[in-house]
Amino acid sequence: MSDVARETGTTLDIKFNDQGLVPAIVQDATTGDVLMMGWMNQAALDQTLATRKATFYSRSRNKMWVKGEESGHIQEVVEARVDCDQDVVLLRCKSHGPACHVGYHTCFFRAATAEKAEGGLQIVEKRAFDPKKVYAK
Amino acid sequence: MSDVARETGTTLDIKFNDQGLVPAIVQDATTGDVLMMGWMNQAALDQTLATRKATFYSRSRNKMWVKGEESGHIQEVVEARVDCDQDVVLLRCKSHGPACHVGYHTCFFRAATAEKAEGGLQIVEKRAFDPKKVYAK
Repeated sequence: MSDVARETGTTLDIKFNDQGLVPAIVQDATTGDVLMMGWMNQAALDQTLATRKATFYSRSRNKMWVKGEESGHIQEVVEARVDCDQDVVLLRCKSHGPACHVGYHTCFFRAATAEKAEGGLQIVEKRAFDPKKVYAK
Repeated sequence: MSDVARETGTTLDIKFNDQGLVPAIVQDATTGDVLMMGWMNQAALDQTLATRKATFYSRSRNKMWVKGEESGHIQEVVEARVDCDQDVVLLRCKSHGPACHVGYHTCFFRAATAEKAEGGLQIVEKRAFDPKKVYAK
């Protein structure tokens, strides 16, 4: 497919990277909060679109995983979008619990500050849960 | 740095990939819309934080670029965040014009539909400008 067709047409033709993966941003469809970013292979994308549950490919564990399969904090897909280049996916989701395994509502709970001497990051969200109680295994 | 320190601490320590790049999501700080995703190397990240203008590294052109340098549609950084793993950046920005070079407000102007026979994508945004008039060069 030509770049122009991919960028402006209506044929789904995801450009996976050389590892067969595409980044997928998860956004809360109600609040607009960006919750997390994961990676998908073709099978994870297909499963996400079929089941409407955000499903990713773990690069560290080398396997597919359904977000929330352990914690119960699933992300129910309201709408899946692709960007112009078709090399990024955006999932607009209904959240069933906080997104971050560290215990926050979103994975983006820290902001960069101008104070490099103090480490450069500042926590800007309240912790939503204790991961030790949710991930018991 | 240990994984735990990186995930929960307040020291900025971005985990760039094997090409020295990190994905950076751009979100409209006012509307919450996810506008685009680009890639940054260390120099682009440093320049973004110093100038507060979203700056990326183009993998196709092999050089840094300031978003909007040609179109004038710059993204003014209100807040920069990092995710738990510190391998994704989120820029909450004040937009100075549409984000997408194809002419839409966001790069995510198409949604995946259930109708694979019809190509699988549907345009869900109105075009904001004619790229031929903005990118004259």
